[in-house]
Amino acid sequence: MPVNTIYLEDNKIKLIDQTRLPLEFVTLEIDDYKILAEAVKKLQVRGAPAIGIAGAFGVVIGMQNFQGNDKTAFIALAERIISELAATRPTAVNLFWALNKMKSTLLENKQKSIGEIKQLLKAQALQIYEQDKQICRALGRHGASVVENNTTILTHCNAGALATADYGTALGVIYTAHEQGKKISVYADETRPLLQGARLTSWELMQAGIDVTLICDNMAAYVMQQGLIDYIFVGADRIASNGDTANKIGTYNLAVLAQYHNIPFYIVAPTSTIDFEISTGKQIPVEQRTAEEVSVGFGKRTAPENVKVYNPAFDVTPHELITAIVTEFGIIYPPYKLT
Amino acid sequence: MPVNTIYLEDNKIKLIDQTRLPLEFVTLEIDDYKILAEAVKKLQVRGAPAIGIAGAFGVVIGMQNFQGNDKTAFIALAERIISELAATRPTAVNLFWALNKMKSTLLENKQKSIGEIKQLLKAQALQIYEQDKQICRALGRHGASVVENNTTILTHCNAGALATADYGTALGVIYTAHEQGKKISVYADETRPLLQGARLTSWELMQAGIDVTLICDNMAAYVMQQGLIDYIFVGADRIASNGDTANKIGTYNLAVLAQYHNIPFYIVAPTSTIDFEISTGKQIPVEQRTAEEVSVGFGKRTAPENVKVYNPAFDVTPHELITAIVTEFGIIYPPYKLT
Repeated sequence: MPVNTIYLEDNKIKLIDQTRLPLEFVTLEIDDYKILAEAVKKLQVRGAPAIGIAGAFGVVIGMQNFQGNDKTAFIALAERIISELAATRPTAVNLFWALNKMKSTLLENKQKSIGEIKQLLKAQALQIYEQDKQICRALGRHGASVVENNTTILTHCNAGALATADYGTALGVIYTAHEQGKKISVYADETRPLLQGARLTSWELMQAGIDVTLICDNMAAYVMQQGLIDYIFVGADRIASNGDTANKIGTYNLAVLAQYHNIPFYIVAPTSTIDFEISTGKQIPVEQRTAEEVSVGFGKRTAPENVKVYNPAFDVTPHELITAIVTEFGIIYPPYKLT
Repeated sequence: MPVNTIYLEDNKIKLIDQTRLPLEFVTLEIDDYKILAEAVKKLQVRGAPAIGIAGAFGVVIGMQNFQGNDKTAFIALAERIISELAATRPTAVNLFWALNKMKSTLLENKQKSIGEIKQLLKAQALQIYEQDKQICRALGRHGASVVENNTTILTHCNAGALATADYGTALGVIYTAHEQGKKISVYADETRPLLQGARLTSWELMQAGIDVTLICDNMAAYVMQQGLIDYIFVGADRIASNGDTANKIGTYNLAVLAQYHNIPFYIVAPTSTIDFEISTGKQIPVEQRTAEEVSVGFGKRTAPENVKVYNPAFDVTPHELITAIVTEFGIIYPPYKLT
């Protein structure tokens, strides 16, 4: 069983504080949507599917605290909470997808009583959560169908149990292949600046008994050159309808290397990651994060004071570098026309 | 004036402890060759030309301490010191080149008195040192001849003043272009695991008033994709006679990216970096370093205990990805036949 990254219990959101892994395993209990919004911003919970779930749960706990019978105030508060949560992170589209579902539930049921609407919002959030579990399994199944026995997979960042309600997306493929009895080894990029690969992916895979080797991001090319990698599987934060894919910074680098070394490069993501509204990746906003993530890495300054830093959290891989996109409905091969 | 990374004074080797930059600027005084050997292993002094100089100086201080008149013992000690110093780091060839020069001086003069041999060894080491200064200037001049005004250069690791006796190799090109009045901006890869780019290159360039922006290694592809990079200049630790080049891990990654984005990719290195004995890069031994450099990076564990780590310190860029090799005698273009 993968770790339980986020869930709702006693009207509280319980989530593993991922900023403290792998040194400490701490579960936060959150009953205030503002604290949840901060947790998303600070990446205590991260991963496109998981922040979609977090957003939906945030609406539930935010509305749970509403007292009284003023329906107009109730609707207004719900809408404010939804927009506040939508403003936490700009790139992953699953957050907006989940919040839109919550908003639809709200507006479609606004004639009902406040108590009923609260119940319906909770039911919708739990459905998003349960659906994500099913999706992880389906992604794993479809992805694993292309993975041969005795192979080695390179992955980047964390697209695993810690990024979803269950198995993960890219790591779901690995877990599934492993369960199918295939011998799979993994190279995990550490994924600077926040080291999700070092801290989260290697931890998750070790817990699951899967052979994993940690490398620095700049070693991936050399590992590929030596013929050590058979496949690359990564997740996605937003996919444009032409297949261009935003994912953690460094993904585009891997895609270029994969093409040069003739290694298949797969995106694994639920269809909620697809932004049908945009035609190409150029329209995806890339979140810029603080200089200190780079210059004061882990409790210690590693670059001069006042050094200028460029710190994009994502990059966009053009569709022509993507071998296929694994979704819960099956594998999509180019040419991509996601409609 | 660039910083004075390493020099000989009062029969002591004085060197900046580069492991403590940029937080602390500490100059070590070393009068024991064993301590010098440790300093090279621990990367307190690093950079191919600088460790060549360090090796030569190490022989000087090692022999300086020899007492008595037993010539056979003197020669034997010198040979032992030379082999101990040669065993400190395996990849950069400048170290062996410098130690070979010291050994030749020793053997060619073994009929002379111990006092005279000591003087000749010191003179040889100082000549290697002075020569490196001239070479840095020549490298800078030749390299800058291909750099246009108002351009941006990406570099990796530290091939600067801290890696040489003077200006640096790749950074020497930047310093020279800057002095010529050209407006040059620099992107510096932080260079995991030991962050020479973050700690050393950005520090050096800021001291010199050159515009520098720090990025994580995995961001270089995205920066290139945005059209922000005009040239890549990097140093080298060993060049095979077909032009294949070993340099800090991550260099090969950049070379693949450069080709994909049509960006000229230059190696800048003295001819002492060329290993004429080997025909291709496959013959270059790549130093493997400890897991802790990756997993306990920043004074804090950033990966699970016992995680398997692969930590090659160098990679080898095949000659077909190298636009040209800048040497102190001029720029060499392909096909490379270095004899």
